[in-house]
Formats: sequence, structure tokens, C-alpha cells
Amino acid sequence: MRVNIQRIQRDIENLSSFNATPGKGITRLAFTKEDKEAREYIRNQMEKIGLEIHEDGYGNLFGRKYGRNKELPSILVGSHYDTVINGGSFDGMAGLVTGLEVARYLVEEKIEHDHTLEVVAFNDEEGVRFGNGISNSRAITGDMKEEELDNTFDKNGVSLRKAMEDYGIKPDLKSAIRPKGSIKAFFELHIEQGPVLIENNKEVGIVETIVGLDRYDIRFTGKAGHAGTTPMNNRKDAFLPAAEFTLGINKIGKEAGYGAVATVGEIKLLPNASNVIPGFVQISVDIRATREDVINNIHSEMTKLIKELDEKYPVDIDLRKTLYISPVDMSEDLFNLLDRKAEELGIKYEKMNSGAGHDAMMMARIAPTSLVFVPSKDGLSHHPEEWTDYEDLAKGIELILSAVLELI
Amino acid sequence: MRVNIQRIQRDIENLSSFNATPGKGITRLAFTKEDKEAREYIRNQMEKIGLEIHEDGYGNLFGRKYGRNKELPSILVGSHYDTVINGGSFDGMAGLVTGLEVARYLVEEKIEHDHTLEVVAFNDEEGVRFGNGISNSRAITGDMKEEELDNTFDKNGVSLRKAMEDYGIKPDLKSAIRPKGSIKAFFELHIEQGPVLIENNKEVGIVETIVGLDRYDIRFTGKAGHAGTTPMNNRKDAFLPAAEFTLGINKIGKEAGYGAVATVGEIKLLPNASNVIPGFVQISVDIRATREDVINNIHSEMTKLIKELDEKYPVDIDLRKTLYISPVDMSEDLFNLLDRKAEELGIKYEKMNSGAGHDAMMMARIAPTSLVFVPSKDGLSHHPEEWTDYEDLAKGIELILSAVLELI
Repeated sequence: MRVNIQRIQRDIENLSSFNATPGKGITRLAFTKEDKEAREYIRNQMEKIGLEIHEDGYGNLFGRKYGRNKELPSILVGSHYDTVINGGSFDGMAGLVTGLEVARYLVEEKIEHDHTLEVVAFNDEEGVRFGNGISNSRAITGDMKEEELDNTFDKNGVSLRKAMEDYGIKPDLKSAIRPKGSIKAFFELHIEQGPVLIENNKEVGIVETIVGLDRYDIRFTGKAGHAGTTPMNNRKDAFLPAAEFTLGINKIGKEAGYGAVATVGEIKLLPNASNVIPGFVQISVDIRATREDVINNIHSEMTKLIKELDEKYPVDIDLRKTLYISPVDMSEDLFNLLDRKAEELGIKYEKMNSGAGHDAMMMARIAPTSLVFVPSKDGLSHHPEEWTDYEDLAKGIELILSAVLELI
Repeated sequence: MRVNIQRIQRDIENLSSFNATPGKGITRLAFTKEDKEAREYIRNQMEKIGLEIHEDGYGNLFGRKYGRNKELPSILVGSHYDTVINGGSFDGMAGLVTGLEVARYLVEEKIEHDHTLEVVAFNDEEGVRFGNGISNSRAITGDMKEEELDNTFDKNGVSLRKAMEDYGIKPDLKSAIRPKGSIKAFFELHIEQGPVLIENNKEVGIVETIVGLDRYDIRFTGKAGHAGTTPMNNRKDAFLPAAEFTLGINKIGKEAGYGAVATVGEIKLLPNASNVIPGFVQISVDIRATREDVINNIHSEMTKLIKELDEKYPVDIDLRKTLYISPVDMSEDLFNLLDRKAEELGIKYEKMNSGAGHDAMMMARIAPTSLVFVPSKDGLSHHPEEWTDYEDLAKGIELILSAVLELI
């Protein structure tokens, strides 16, 4: 193997030390003290490698190793370094370290290349602090607007703009936009965050499509009442239609195909006491699929189901859309290149879809983009026990390195 | 009408002023400052009427108007004066005020009687502070044990014994026990806490049976996972069997008859996030019926249902019983007496069961006991908006007064 596992491990472990919750997983929210320390570490590593530092108007950090022809479009490798609250050491960081390791290899092996390599460190992908998400890669594609900087607040009421200014960045959205044509390829390595690779005994996953996401809140308003004194035929129990909906949407998701999933993950039930009939229930619905028409079909089945429940139960049902993101296809050319490289390297890969959003989702708007997964132990992520064996991580990096070496 | 509505209203309103949460319903937990103030008010009212005060070893307060023959068993009328948190002004107090009003009538009208009338003020019926409930009437029947005084704590870690001592009562369980045969009849008036009287257009309810209560927690342990990255066929979603159980137990309760009710009122779902598959769900099950064999049938249907769900879903299901109370029949003789009196007075009554537990449930162990309901607006109770029209309350008191006059 050409990549250096010890070096990869050291980077991951060092980055883990910039953490607001030691002993309780990693917490490094966007534009905080821990973020600043991690960023300083990344900048130092880039400088040590000999990369030229560039920072755009949204604080995206680029470490550039120029090619012989600076006019040619660059090859970008990287990911984000922010985390959720009490998250793990690999989500995001694995992809960033991939960039550093590819750059180190090029420098150490004195590889001559025409195209410029750029290691990219995004921030604020998780969106935990400001509730928006992937804002750094959105800035690069021109999707961030001035209003969002002023109208998005953390739980202490600090606006995104103020947080960035306090952090030392004067937001300049225009300068952050990366023109189409300036990137030849963007590679993001990420942990799978699911069980598929391990269960199918595969070493990496090469992503075809990042699923679209259709998210709702449903409110069921019935009437609370004493569980002992309200006869069964005289109840407006809000939990019953919510329970029937949960079973129904699970069946609809199962039958939809095309990698579709449907999940009720969140419930709020009032008053939530053993001797009181639930008067109000709110649940979340999270629908994902690789094809927009499949998402639309699920939505239409769901609407039918809600209509049935509305007629069956004496409970008001109110459906609200909370988020919609279209499915995004990764580059077919890059997929074919990685497929070939995997075969050369003897790496067993799974052709798969990504059920979670990533920076690659935005970058695909402006550049041929590829997303490579490495196995997640127990499918865990956003969890202190999130884990990827360094050997597995190294194989994923090796695959991307091979592709970069061919393209650069 | 012989009872005095203004006086009843004044008592209810005065008692409402002893309240830890003014403007947010009534909160008067057992053995607190508000409890002490309310008790002082009750004692003063009893003394003003001319009753002799007696306090037993558990702090139950009795106001006695002796009959010509002190050897004869007494007639007791009363209820509790503690409340839930943010409760109403009528739950408990309506029955206590009934006792005061009956005593006032006997005194004012200079009624000669053989048996002693005792107005009784129980405390700690709701069981909110110490989580046990009906402890005052349990003490009277000999059901309270020394261990419970020491092993039952409020949320600040204060034991029941310590709370009573701080309040000024030295618990003497032996002296609190009321021997069988010393009570000729116990009458408790209570708000219905349900919608039946108003919906059936009845003025009072006369209770035949207080339902038995069978309560469980069920824990469903599956596996949390990313809602986007975990395929539908690879999930251990703990919410699905919980939802199916909720629908199933509702059906079982509906079909059981004999006033049976079954309710899932409480849910805890982890991690409770829209993009995470629920890994753990705990729900409460509250089953009530007027016949023990019906409760047993529901339990056996429920066990069958859980077995089916256990086989159908890859989720561990654990059923734990948290409470069992047998159904308790009220006195048939007193029922017939009240039936006759209602007819004489032209009061439209409903023969019904009580879906909630009351002090009458314990008192029935040692004395012929009767429970009379008055209408609850919107079926509401344990709520700041709990309400009974004073005219309705007066009718219930009038009915009990009539019965007392015949027996005494």
C-alpha cells in the first residue's frame, strides 16, 4: 500500500483532541473555539506538506499543490471537519485526512503533474449549530445568500454572520463561489454510516446516487381524557392514527424500491402520562430515494394513507413539509475510473447509494464528483463509538489516490 | 333544596386559595405548607360548625357531631383535600365540602340523631408527592406499613415519615386503624372526571363498582441506525412493534366489555431524532375493568399479542407489571337507598362504574361505602379548567344528605 496508515491514524487522533466534550464523543460545532483549533492544526499540516494555503470568503480552507499548468482545472479531495454533538472521530475527518494523505504522497514521491491538487477542508456540514447544514460547500456553489447569514441563529441567538465575524472571517459570499469548469474532479471519502459494506463483506463503497430527502412533521390533534373514566367509544386518542400511520408509511417505504427508506424517528406525545389518553401527537417522517419519481410516489401513497386515517379517526391530522432535497447523481466517468482502479488494486467494492447527504451533494452541481464509502463498525455514526478500522480507511484512500494519479 | 349553594361555593373557593401555583391551577401536595393552610381552614370550619375535632395517627382529620348513642357506628362523609400539580378546585374538595354541608344542615336544623356523623378530611389521595397514593385512607384500613413511611421518598429525597414529622404529625399507624363495625356507612361525593353524565344528560352518578387497575410498562429494544443509510430490510425499528401493540391493545380493550378500557398513554422513544431509526421504545399500558375475570382475559389477550409481535419483529419485548388493584364493589344497600332518595328528590341519576380509584376504594374494605359522582364539564379533571356547576354539586350533596338523614 502506498498510503501511510500511521500518519492517517495520527491525523484522525490529533483532530479528535479539538473537542468540547472530552470523554463523551467529539463535539466540534462550526465557528467555535474547537473549530478554530482544528482549523489551525489542518493549516499547519498543509503548510508542513508544502501546500499553498488559500481561504475563500466563507472560510473554506484549501491547500494547493500546483500542477505544471495553473490554467488547467484542479482536482479536489476533502471533506468537512465539524461534527455533531457527541459524535465520532471519522465522520468528515476521514475525507479530509484523505486529501492530506494524497498530497503527502505526491510530494514525497515527487510526482510530476499538470493539474493542481487542492486539499479542501469544509466546515459546517452537519448544520448542528445553526440548523441549516452543508453551508460551506453551498457557499462554494453559490447557493448561500446574504439573508441566510443574518436570519440564521444558534440557540444563543448569535447569527451565522456574527459567529463567522467573531471567529475571524468576514463573509464574502461572492469570493467563495467557485466557477464551473475550474474543477476537473472532486473526490470525497466518507464513512458509510450504515451496515451494508460490513454485511456484504466489501472493503469500500462507490456511490452512484445520493438519495433525495423529503421530510415532514405530522400533527394529530385529538382530545386528552382520563384513561379510567373515558369510555373506549368516546375517545379521541391521537396516538392511534399516529401508530397506524407509522406502520403504514413503513410498508409504503418497503414496497417502493429504488433504495427507498421511510422512517418515523421522532415523536412528541401530550400529556404523556400513563393514566391520560394522548390528546396530541407529533411525529416526523423522513423519506429518501434515489429517484425523484419514487419520492413523489411515496408522497402520494402517504397522502392517501393520511386521508384514510382522517376519515377513520375523530382526530385532526395536519401534514407539514419541513425539507426537500432532490436526489443527486455522482459522476459516471469517475465511477468507471474508480471501478477500474478497484479492480487493479484488488479492492472488493459495493456499488451503492448514499442515504445521507454530504458535501459531495453540493459539489456535484459544479464539478464531476465522486463519493467513496469506507465501512462503519455496526453501521454507527453520530455516536461516540463510531469506528472505522484504519486498514479499511487506508484502502479507501488508496483507491482515491490511484484515481487522482491517473487524472492529475 | 336544603343545602346552601353559596356556602358550598365559598368553601370550594376558599380552599382553592391554598395553592402553590396561583394562576396555573391548584397545586397542594401532601404535607406541604399549602396542605397545612388548607387543613387549618378545614379545622376552623369544623369548629365553627360545632364539631369535635379528632385527628388519628396518620393525620386524618375528623369533625364529629355525636349522636344520642355514642356506642353506635358512625356515618362518615368526606373526601381528600390534596391535589395533583396544576389540578382543579373540585377533585376531592367537592366531597369534603359535602361532609361540611351535611354537618351544617344537621346543626342548623337541630336534627336529633342516634348515630354520630363524622366529616372526614383525607390527605395524600393523589399520591403525587410520594408516588404511592390513597395513603391516608389506606392508613385507616390498616394497609399502610412502617416500611412504606421510610422507603417512600419525594423527588427531593425526603421520606414520607420525615415529611409527616416536619408537618407536625408523629405517624402512629396503629392508632390510625379504624376497626370494622365502627362505621355504619361512608359516603364520598366526587367529580366524575369523565364525560358520561353530561353526555347522558344526568345530574348525578351512583357508582356500582370501582374498576380494577392493571398497569404495565413494555420495553421494545431494537437497534438505532441512520434513517438514510440503513436499508428497510436491515432495520430493528423498535417503534413498529410498539405502534402495532398500541393498535392491538386498543382493539382488545374495545372488545372486552364490562366497562373495560385499555390505554397507551405514555411513550419514551430513543434517540428521538427525525433522521435516526428508533432503537428503544417504552410505553405504558393501563387496563381497567369492573370484573377481575375481564382484566385477566385482557391480560391473556395482551400476552398473546406480545408473543405474536415478538415473533414478527427483530426486537426484544419486555413486559413488566407496575400496579394491580382489584375491582371494588360499592355497597348494594346504600345504592338502593340512594336510588330511592334520587327518585324522591326527582334527581336523574346514572348507574355507573368509576374508572378512577378513590378513597372509597379503600373504605369499602371496612365499611358499607357509596360513591356519588357529579358532572365534570368536558370530562376534564387534573386540569386548571376542571369545573362542576355549583347547582350540580348541590344536587349531589342534597342526595347524600337525604341518605344520611334516613340512616342517622
